[in-house]
Amino acid sequence: MSKKLTSRAADYSKWYNELVVKADLAENSAVRGCMVIKPYGYAIWEKMQAELDKMFKETGHQNAYFPLFVPKSLFEAEEKNAEGFAKECAIVTHYRLQNDPDKPGKLRVDPEAKLEEELIVRPTSEAIIWNTYRGWIQSYRDLPILVNQWANVVRWEMRTRLFLRTAEFLWQEGHTAHETKQEALDEAALMNNVYATFVEKFMAIPVVQGLKTESERFAGAVETFCIEALMQDGKALQAGTSHFLGQNFAKAFDVKYVNKEGKQDHVWATSWGVSTRLMGALIMTHSDDNGLVLPPSLAPNQVVIVPIYKSEEQLKAITNVVNGIMSDLRKKGITVKYDNRTTHRPGAKFAQHELQGVPVRLAIGARDLENGTVELARRDTLTKETVELNKLTKTVESLMTEIQESLFNKALNFRNTHTTEVDTFEDFKTVLETKTGFISAHWDGTSETEDKIKELTKATIRCIPLDAKEETGVCVYSGKPSKRRVLFAKAY
Amino acid sequence: MSKKLTSRAADYSKWYNELVVKADLAENSAVRGCMVIKPYGYAIWEKMQAELDKMFKETGHQNAYFPLFVPKSLFEAEEKNAEGFAKECAIVTHYRLQNDPDKPGKLRVDPEAKLEEELIVRPTSEAIIWNTYRGWIQSYRDLPILVNQWANVVRWEMRTRLFLRTAEFLWQEGHTAHETKQEALDEAALMNNVYATFVEKFMAIPVVQGLKTESERFAGAVETFCIEALMQDGKALQAGTSHFLGQNFAKAFDVKYVNKEGKQDHVWATSWGVSTRLMGALIMTHSDDNGLVLPPSLAPNQVVIVPIYKSEEQLKAITNVVNGIMSDLRKKGITVKYDNRTTHRPGAKFAQHELQGVPVRLAIGARDLENGTVELARRDTLTKETVELNKLTKTVESLMTEIQESLFNKALNFRNTHTTEVDTFEDFKTVLETKTGFISAHWDGTSETEDKIKELTKATIRCIPLDAKEETGVCVYSGKPSKRRVLFAKAY
Ligand SMILES: [Zn+2]
Ligand SMILES: [Zn+2]
Repeated sequence: MSKKLTSRAADYSKWYNELVVKADLAENSAVRGCMVIKPYGYAIWEKMQAELDKMFKETGHQNAYFPLFVPKSLFEAEEKNAEGFAKECAIVTHYRLQNDPDKPGKLRVDPEAKLEEELIVRPTSEAIIWNTYRGWIQSYRDLPILVNQWANVVRWEMRTRLFLRTAEFLWQEGHTAHETKQEALDEAALMNNVYATFVEKFMAIPVVQGLKTESERFAGAVETFCIEALMQDGKALQAGTSHFLGQNFAKAFDVKYVNKEGKQDHVWATSWGVSTRLMGALIMTHSDDNGLVLPPSLAPNQVVIVPIYKSEEQLKAITNVVNGIMSDLRKKGITVKYDNRTTHRPGAKFAQHELQGVPVRLAIGARDLENGTVELARRDTLTKETVELNKLTKTVESLMTEIQESLFNKALNFRNTHTTEVDTFEDFKTVLETKTGFISAHWDGTSETEDKIKELTKATIRCIPLDAKEETGVCVYSGKPSKRRVLFAKAY
Repeated sequence: MSKKLTSRAADYSKWYNELVVKADLAENSAVRGCMVIKPYGYAIWEKMQAELDKMFKETGHQNAYFPLFVPKSLFEAEEKNAEGFAKECAIVTHYRLQNDPDKPGKLRVDPEAKLEEELIVRPTSEAIIWNTYRGWIQSYRDLPILVNQWANVVRWEMRTRLFLRTAEFLWQEGHTAHETKQEALDEAALMNNVYATFVEKFMAIPVVQGLKTESERFAGAVETFCIEALMQDGKALQAGTSHFLGQNFAKAFDVKYVNKEGKQDHVWATSWGVSTRLMGALIMTHSDDNGLVLPPSLAPNQVVIVPIYKSEEQLKAITNVVNGIMSDLRKKGITVKYDNRTTHRPGAKFAQHELQGVPVRLAIGARDLENGTVELARRDTLTKETVELNKLTKTVESLMTEIQESLFNKALNFRNTHTTEVDTFEDFKTVLETKTGFISAHWDGTSETEDKIKELTKATIRCIPLDAKEETGVCVYSGKPSKRRVLFAKAY
């Protein structure tokens, strides 16, 4: 905890890795690519979960739970989906260990306990869920099915980074079934919008809503909606996706329903998910060289109070005042922690709370007691002011809103100044390398051009924005005609 | 849904299996021994989770998340623990699939993608967590660590039953680290008491708190606290366990701390858990031949309202009244659902809500509108009464408490009448086979006697009750001296 963080300017990637560990958010584990989410990091994730879960329920969804494992024969049923995930699957082949005859005290896999059919640790649950839905759906009366699952999934990534790309991660995955194509399309758009609202209002991160190009779509999807955010290093981060799956899974798993006219048809599907990757977006959007910066709505402690004292008597007097402050703040729904640890000095406490991004820090010493004041420090602006005790609750309460909005506006301003319209491929490359950020450019709509641009610049099409204006132009690379601009960026 | 349940008297086990499926709680999946928890069942589990989580946090615990996988070398480090779980482990050996050259469109495990070290899907997380704690603990200042995890675990059981014994199940596992033996013992006892309070107050299930005998202890524990409940068929069900682990895991994973005197010592540990098995206890304690019976504190819908109408106009008038009722009930914190589905007749709705255990059902027809009344049906007693509209909120509110208490008292009365003191082995066998339930008997304290009794009767020692009186007697089997009675039963 003692050493300073590497600065963003010096090494953005190192800054991120150090911050995650030093702020007690997560750490690497003994299992390749799997992380331990530490209590402080998990408390932030729990706040995200609670709010998302509320939003899912308000839009009519229920939670359920499906198996961790997918039998190989089900996994391969929807071919494109299987193809997309086959190369990163953890596979269970045996169900028993035995004593190793060659090494006393050690165990080995029991060769007799081989599974007849291998089990895939779910990288996503469409297969197992659609195989289940076949039993749930007979008629239009059984539709829609609006189900969400909170779960862990495993994708055997070769290069991993805490929160951003881990072999195991936590997420939610919604899986819905509908009578009509339009209803499923509407659901996919609705949930993408729920994500956008959540990320903007609660995480204070501005996002662009859009559609993925064919090559960036989820394996097995007909259309993928997404929300894209911009990090401080000018790279984009896909923060959530919502897929219109057409009838692909219904056909692969033979899920039919009898409609109101008595005719059979395959069901229409969506799936949508966000994951602990959002933690990475949160960290990289707001934090600074001093550590984490948290929007009040996601801070486990919105306010921390540190007593500055020289004697037990002073501490007692301060504690009396603090108890009143805490009671007043809690009545306003503000979470507050009194850091009266005797094992740490005030300076160390200040440093820790700054590193961990507590939005507001109050300090109270003997002089404050005399003057009826408190020292208030804002984490986002790193500014301090002296506040009269009788105005403290109001001040803190309005700061909660102010900080939340200020963080969003700062990030929005960054994104706006780092979104550039370009019309030539020379400008494209220059902006990408110097100014960085989103590049709004015309594209001819072909995968060939998309691939070529990626190969030449490492930039990918992040999305075709939902609000893209119709505008005739020519492709920045091929010169062929184009009807709208799309957003390019280097991405996480 | 149309067919009646098998009665408990006819076939208790079949009754249970049918009820779980017909009440939409869970079903078997395509993966051997793994279940799908359906939305209605999951909603009950969510209520358990929320309350337990609150109780854990009130006792100073924080949540975190540790990897799903345990490398074999860590898994085998604590030998007794490893031995206890080795025979029921799902094992990941490969990390990639490839196209099967012999079967177009099919996949096979890529033989090139074999892991150097096999990964065990966690059957419990002591190993991976204590390997992590080594990095978190240096001095007494880092203690205690009070961490809980909500997670899925896998134990490859050969004979499975929905909720009661499944290959994958959901649970929470607390893992704490302490400076002293006494502090760890106190923690283990405290958490067992938290479980007892939760199960009695929220699930309305009376439990006996006790200690496990050596042969029934958790693998790797020095002492196992437990709560034991009695099901309606006279069999016991272990509803939760809390383990004092001594320094076993600290030694296996070399977790030491420097104490206040500057000396190094190994840390003391506990772990404690409850699982979706509690769903089985809930179902088997309260339900009847008509289906599920839910205590109000765990019912996803505490009240359901069914309109009885012959015309659109009647429905409109009823709905007006219902809106007022719902608003009044919700103000009192009561969850209420208006079942105005047009796809089902009132009779079918009544049957469904009875099967699904909704504590209170209200029905309103045209005559009720004229009379200013509502028909109120209680699920637990299957009684009906007519209630005046202006007394409805109060009536329902007090019923919430009354039903909760009544269910607990009914279960307590059942347990009391099915707990029998016996002093001879003949009586032991007779009571076990005819009256069933808990048998309170003297035992000589040896594993030999315990094993012999189990072999002869299938009864096991459920626990040595914490409140067992000192009482000199002789072992019901061996005739050797004994100082207190223990509880025997056949068990799930
Ligand atoms: Zn810039
Ligand atoms: Zn009886």
